[in-house]
Amino acid sequence: MLTAIDLNSDVGESFGRWRLGDEEILPFVTSVNVACGMHAGDPVHMDEIVGKAHELKLAIGAHPGLPDLQGFGRREINLTPREIETYVLYQVSALNGFAVSRGSSLTHVKPHGALYNMAVIDNRVARAVARGVARAGGHLILVGLPGSCLLQAADTLGLPAAAEAFADRAYNSDGTLVKRGLPGSIIEDPDEAARRALDIALRGTIKSIDGKEISIPAKTICVHGDTPGAVEMARTIRRRLESAGVTLRPLGELAGRAK
Amino acid sequence: MLTAIDLNSDVGESFGRWRLGDEEILPFVTSVNVACGMHAGDPVHMDEIVGKAHELKLAIGAHPGLPDLQGFGRREINLTPREIETYVLYQVSALNGFAVSRGSSLTHVKPHGALYNMAVIDNRVARAVARGVARAGGHLILVGLPGSCLLQAADTLGLPAAAEAFADRAYNSDGTLVKRGLPGSIIEDPDEAARRALDIALRGTIKSIDGKEISIPAKTICVHGDTPGAVEMARTIRRRLESAGVTLRPLGELAGRAK
Amino acid sequence: MLTAIDLNSDVGESFGRWRLGDEEILPFVTSVNVACGMHAGDPVHMDEIVGKAHELKLAIGAHPGLPDLQGFGRREINLTPREIETYVLYQVSALNGFAVSRGSSLTHVKPHGALYNMAVIDNRVARAVARGVARAGGHLILVGLPGSCLLQAADTLGLPAAAEAFADRAYNSDGTLVKRGLPGSIIEDPDEAARRALDIALRGTIKSIDGKEISIPAKTICVHGDTPGAVEMARTIRRRLESAGVTLRPLGELAGRAK
Amino acid sequence: MLTAIDLNSDVGESFGRWRLGDEEILPFVTSVNVACGMHAGDPVHMDEIVGKAHELKLAIGAHPGLPDLQGFGRREINLTPREIETYVLYQVSALNGFAVSRGSSLTHVKPHGALYNMAVIDNRVARAVARGVARAGGHLILVGLPGSCLLQAADTLGLPAAAEAFADRAYNSDGTLVKRGLPGSIIEDPDEAARRALDIALRGTIKSIDGKEISIPAKTICVHGDTPGAVEMARTIRRRLESAGVTLRPLGELAGRAK
Repeated sequence: MLTAIDLNSDVGESFGRWRLGDEEILPFVTSVNVACGMHAGDPVHMDEIVGKAHELKLAIGAHPGLPDLQGFGRREINLTPREIETYVLYQVSALNGFAVSRGSSLTHVKPHGALYNMAVIDNRVARAVARGVARAGGHLILVGLPGSCLLQAADTLGLPAAAEAFADRAYNSDGTLVKRGLPGSIIEDPDEAARRALDIALRGTIKSIDGKEISIPAKTICVHGDTPGAVEMARTIRRRLESAGVTLRPLGELAGRAK
Repeated sequence: MLTAIDLNSDVGESFGRWRLGDEEILPFVTSVNVACGMHAGDPVHMDEIVGKAHELKLAIGAHPGLPDLQGFGRREINLTPREIETYVLYQVSALNGFAVSRGSSLTHVKPHGALYNMAVIDNRVARAVARGVARAGGHLILVGLPGSCLLQAADTLGLPAAAEAFADRAYNSDGTLVKRGLPGSIIEDPDEAARRALDIALRGTIKSIDGKEISIPAKTICVHGDTPGAVEMARTIRRRLESAGVTLRPLGELAGRAK
Repeated sequence: MLTAIDLNSDVGESFGRWRLGDEEILPFVTSVNVACGMHAGDPVHMDEIVGKAHELKLAIGAHPGLPDLQGFGRREINLTPREIETYVLYQVSALNGFAVSRGSSLTHVKPHGALYNMAVIDNRVARAVARGVARAGGHLILVGLPGSCLLQAADTLGLPAAAEAFADRAYNSDGTLVKRGLPGSIIEDPDEAARRALDIALRGTIKSIDGKEISIPAKTICVHGDTPGAVEMARTIRRRLESAGVTLRPLGELAGRAK
Repeated sequence: MLTAIDLNSDVGESFGRWRLGDEEILPFVTSVNVACGMHAGDPVHMDEIVGKAHELKLAIGAHPGLPDLQGFGRREINLTPREIETYVLYQVSALNGFAVSRGSSLTHVKPHGALYNMAVIDNRVARAVARGVARAGGHLILVGLPGSCLLQAADTLGLPAAAEAFADRAYNSDGTLVKRGLPGSIIEDPDEAARRALDIALRGTIKSIDGKEISIPAKTICVHGDTPGAVEMARTIRRRLESAGVTLRPLGELAGRAK
């Protein structure tokens, strides 16, 4: 059985003088999710990273977050649906300008941090995010956790969607992620992460933190770019997938088979 | 001789809880310049004002500013050309998303405050603004002071442009504006402002603060919306122009005759 | 029975170009709570309002909020206790500098908006706020809702505290405020508000939205300064209290009797 | 001849998730200048770094900057004197709260980036900074370039002051710094920097970029903490100074001999 999957990474998360490592990960992924200025990112960095991703023919997506630079978009904020919808539309549109001005275009949207997590379990948030994305263009693929409210909201609005798995994060047996900060929540060994990526790609499964095999029907695997060892991990995962005959293909090209 | 001119106003300059009066001015103008979040404006307000302007069939333009909420974009910041170009592209693109999602589109871009003023006299700034606008779409009309570096930069890049005059601001005899804060810099009498608007529309001239008649070849007249009496002034100017047979026509429809 | 009470108002909530009405309320209150830059306020406005309050011999307190200008500190943010403690200490200390430099000093701290509300019911937040205040100086009076976690936390840390009542907000029968936005949550009639202020001052009670008389043992009554009619309301409340023989006395002078 | 000098470093320049290296430099300096939240720094980082500096018995100073996170306080902003004065007072006071709450206190103030540079040559800015510092407490030592408007302003207001030299920056023969970005502006070789530090400490001179020996009567030498190799450079400079019999002594203890 031949299989194709996407490898995505969150990038563009520098802000002014402050850098969070970016470019080294680009050769190993097929899609990038670019921060749009609310939780991280600024226009200069957005333009740079879009340029590089375009040269490498990566799928370019928006990575909108909550308006909270100090908290890096990781602190939940109690927003109205209207705020969420317009914040998403604002950020996706801003990034879109950089892509279009370089002869490229956006393929997808993946919410960041607390917005991503809120959209897993909160229908009100999920629908607001999906409305924002729909207003930015009905072709945009919404990326989220399998079984999340976000992917349901995409379905309701007729948006293409792609389920995402994490090779370097531990899972609870209900398919949710083990919270950052809990012991074992982050997988740091590249070989272990690569084994998990293989399971995701070839079998659509992953082993939960308490040893159960759970179903993860993902079209894209996230590799983090902002941790020490991130590049080595991405390289290992990619090599292992390719050795096993898995084709790496950017999100847009997988879209026909979406959801 | 039949003449047409545009009346524009800066709008969308509220921010969260803080309001700067908006909607009342809309019925009296033909174009609006919408703040884009860096000096003022937030996604919720941007969406609202774009919606209202679209209903009223006003020409919708971006009003990008310096990233300085505390200074309302009125304090010069020593930015690199790359920063200016990408800040403009970011803001115009963000606003564009709101317009397009409502079946509308942007017709023009008018820089705000210190960015507007820097682009009058500083070629480096003017060209960076024009590049940002060009990247956002070559059809966008760049609005600026007659004789400014900004309009020259538009010309150089082949962008449509529209010279702007102010009915409620005093002019020096070299065609520059008398600085805010100097005595007589602001015209507060609606009748006086309306007389000046008529001179601009019918004769392309205005009387300078020291009594000289100077040439102001403007396609659009700015009326301010954030001052007490702004609505009354806009109403008076519009009535007087219409009584004198001047057609009010939004910027886009005047574009064929641009520059 | 002769009684004394304090009238407090939240002030300094302008930001740069954006104004929220301030000075007119000052002659009618005995204490002010000054915004400190995170949810509203900027150094120029802080300095101005501290100067005016000092001239009028009002008790000056800090009004620290969540770091969210766009949401005016009214949106809950999921912060760590360490963040809350240091955000409070930062804001109180910043304001203290303006007071001390004018020969004045701070008497109290009243959290703003979502921080105030979170500290009513969430012990973790309440204790973090109280620790921040304690670190800023053990003499500072913590102002909060009667029965709130915040006042309990002040008690635990040995901080002076003052219970606060609202003359212009409706109460549930459990002593909590009827949420903004719900029908009847805001009392707009100055006479009605003044009657409620009298009940609070003379009898320590208020009538709840469903008609029950509940106990509100308050040392200070809040009058809002940022709504239309705010000044008229403050004037009416003050006059009515004074006519009834209630002495208006700033928070610091009531402190001996605290809690 | 026995000599004493201070070694200072700018610290606390992280912001939320974004880190700029700090703690490793602390053992090698005698004073720190802590960012205060406008150009960098946040309350959590301020509290941490103040705690560590206090344990190490370093002199703790404020490092106030322009309100420009995106530009890291390095872009000139055209502020009014009133804005500058109150921004400085705000930042110094906020930091002071962290120091005092740990049983420490501030010894000095050193402006950051564009504010530092503007205060070298612009009297209006220099006096506004000095007024802000004076309002925060007349004992605070103002740190600046020898011959700068800032040190003159300190003198005029009767504030203690300390001239600063840079071991790792090239000088023009008029005593100003060679601008960042120009070739040779940064000295990266620790041995070369240490030699320059020795000249500054023992002879009060430094060799300019065109080979002239110029007078630099400094009480403190700045070593940068945010560059690769910064720690090694600080270690080398300190060792060399101590080997040559120079006593390292924090700013406050040198104050008696100020200016």
